[in-house]
Amino acid sequence: MGKQSYTIVEGGGVTTPKGFKAGGLHCGLKKTERHDLGVILCEVPAAAAAVYTTNLFQAAPLQVTREALGAGGVLRAVIVNSGNANACTGAQGDADARAMQSNAAEALDVSKDEVAVASTGVIGELLKMDRVNAGIEKLPGKLRSDLQGSDDFCQAILTTDLVKKTSCVAVEIDGRQVTIAGAAKGSGMIHPNMATMLGFVTTDAKIGSGLLQEVLREVTNLSFNMITVDGDTSTNDMLVAMASGLADNSELTRSHPDFAAFVDGLRHVCTELAKAIARDGEGATKLIETTVVGADSDEAAQAIAKTIIGSSLVKSAVYGADANWGRIIAAVGRAGQPVNVGTVDIRLGDILVLEQSRPIPFDEEIALEYLKGDTVAIHVNLNMGSGQATAWGCDLTYDYVRINAAYRT
Amino acid sequence: MGKQSYTIVEGGGVTTPKGFKAGGLHCGLKKTERHDLGVILCEVPAAAAAVYTTNLFQAAPLQVTREALGAGGVLRAVIVNSGNANACTGAQGDADARAMQSNAAEALDVSKDEVAVASTGVIGELLKMDRVNAGIEKLPGKLRSDLQGSDDFCQAILTTDLVKKTSCVAVEIDGRQVTIAGAAKGSGMIHPNMATMLGFVTTDAKIGSGLLQEVLREVTNLSFNMITVDGDTSTNDMLVAMASGLADNSELTRSHPDFAAFVDGLRHVCTELAKAIARDGEGATKLIETTVVGADSDEAAQAIAKTIIGSSLVKSAVYGADANWGRIIAAVGRAGQPVNVGTVDIRLGDILVLEQSRPIPFDEEIALEYLKGDTVAIHVNLNMGSGQATAWGCDLTYDYVRINAAYRT
Repeated sequence: MGKQSYTIVEGGGVTTPKGFKAGGLHCGLKKTERHDLGVILCEVPAAAAAVYTTNLFQAAPLQVTREALGAGGVLRAVIVNSGNANACTGAQGDADARAMQSNAAEALDVSKDEVAVASTGVIGELLKMDRVNAGIEKLPGKLRSDLQGSDDFCQAILTTDLVKKTSCVAVEIDGRQVTIAGAAKGSGMIHPNMATMLGFVTTDAKIGSGLLQEVLREVTNLSFNMITVDGDTSTNDMLVAMASGLADNSELTRSHPDFAAFVDGLRHVCTELAKAIARDGEGATKLIETTVVGADSDEAAQAIAKTIIGSSLVKSAVYGADANWGRIIAAVGRAGQPVNVGTVDIRLGDILVLEQSRPIPFDEEIALEYLKGDTVAIHVNLNMGSGQATAWGCDLTYDYVRINAAYRT
Repeated sequence: MGKQSYTIVEGGGVTTPKGFKAGGLHCGLKKTERHDLGVILCEVPAAAAAVYTTNLFQAAPLQVTREALGAGGVLRAVIVNSGNANACTGAQGDADARAMQSNAAEALDVSKDEVAVASTGVIGELLKMDRVNAGIEKLPGKLRSDLQGSDDFCQAILTTDLVKKTSCVAVEIDGRQVTIAGAAKGSGMIHPNMATMLGFVTTDAKIGSGLLQEVLREVTNLSFNMITVDGDTSTNDMLVAMASGLADNSELTRSHPDFAAFVDGLRHVCTELAKAIARDGEGATKLIETTVVGADSDEAAQAIAKTIIGSSLVKSAVYGADANWGRIIAAVGRAGQPVNVGTVDIRLGDILVLEQSRPIPFDEEIALEYLKGDTVAIHVNLNMGSGQATAWGCDLTYDYVRINAAYRT
């Protein structure tokens, strides 16, 4: 990647890029008093793009959003509820998602074709539309262009998440400052494929929706698609990006001299959000970062990294601070990718535990200390080629089981 | 399958078929006083076959067993230790597996080419060969042809298993009684592909090793390969079958009138062992049986059934007795198989919860009672074709995490 081409904007959020307001409130879908309805509004038509879950059972809002984006690649707003996924809800669910779209459009004074809809929560229950509609009416009064607006929105999209997830960077394009920000939620049923749980990116860059779609997909494959909490791909995964163009740079193309800087910045935002989701995985106490290098191809490295990060045995061992590298190599061996069984190196942080597939004696006390930290890095070198990848996940704990043994009740 | 072509032999074990003795003892590989070294001996050369893990990192004993079987498809004995997998142990591990083979051959007075070797336990540590060798010298004195011999062997192959796993049936071939028996171990790192953890089948049927190999693979695909505990495929999975021929039937061929009865009997033994492994999955409180019918093909049904049974969210919900069918349909939708999203029926036991992909109101109290049982059946009908499959797994509990957070220590 060379030198870092972006600056991190501490405390920035989805309202930092020029032209965006956001807000959130409690409409009554969650049992607690926490926000459960949120909105992002752009003051001008924003070039927009989205990626969606690959699960065959896609929730009603995804189809509504797909149609909105299909009408011209432009969005003014996205309306989101938490507490109910509006998935597997049949014709009524479809009608409810469309009602959310049109009611939000009316309240925000935009066209309904310019409103995306997203939902997250329990599957298979109908939305309490009276509460949603009452909330939508109050939303315009909650819109703010400051960080409180971003914060309220971040809160409104959470379910079992413990922390709000946001990231913001600035990049220089044509000598102008362009900002890129994102918000996300996700904690369980996390094994994204094409998109994550829910993610929202705002930017004031000037970029066409076609190119934004291409870049969003490329960056998603290296960020949201490289995390797993539990191997379960949701019915509601969706990532939406909106570009206001108000930074007034000359429109980005692949040959624009600052195009790479924009992609790097977007990748940073998406990777930070993805890592935040992994760290906040249901019941998690640690972030696990697995890097695989020396593979036959990047695709092989990705598959192996995701197999390691998805292994319940590896995740349990990390929870217990047990330097059980046997489970790591067993995961490497079942990933379905080319591996030379005699040339594998494994490190836990800086601690070499396997070299050329042979166990290396290591200090168990030092390993224990390292594994007790809140971030555990697993490095695998296959010593075959130049393919590499990084994936993120979390440990498997008692609390994951507790949370998921009684989610509906 | 038509009418049942076999009779269950209650209390039968690997010593029930004519010609087999077995035994076990504690040699010192396990920290507790439980048996950790076992042997099965056939008084005549037995036609033999085996299937192995597909993990690229195969433990040393697998190569030794593969070579023994390659030398003529005949075995007299199989020697097994628990407490140490002898996997990822390099040249010393290979030498140790070969020493187990030749020392057992000497002690049992058979050719070393007629001895299979299997190991299970921790990965990456060298065997304490002084203890193993001392145990092997005592093994001949522990051989018994009664059920105590079978019992001692079953005990000797266990690791985190809580219960011994055995099954036995009788089938009539040429008017003679033929018995088929099996023993197995397995509790964690269970996601077999081509073979299970460790399984041992004995029979007194007369059958050539080539046909026995074919049948063993076919039956394995419908039994051991249809279970999962945690999605992790071991480095040591192995299933060995030995046929003494002492029932003195005319040699089995595919056109033999009782061939189907033999296969049915073998399938019953392997399925019972596979289900016992799933029920005894690490930390498990329940057996989950998932049946998928109406799929495009049997292969599609198998993939979907295994995706459901492998879902951490489904497993956690079953532990919590939560009728969370949304997680089941989400698993159906991410299995990578053809599914008509409008025609899916789901039942929990006899309780219909989804029909033509629409939620059906059901009595939560009755569902709770059903889900509190020790066996939970999930039925999915895709209403597309005639493909079907059944898979077995277990619930995900606090104890799975507890057991695996500190396995090595």
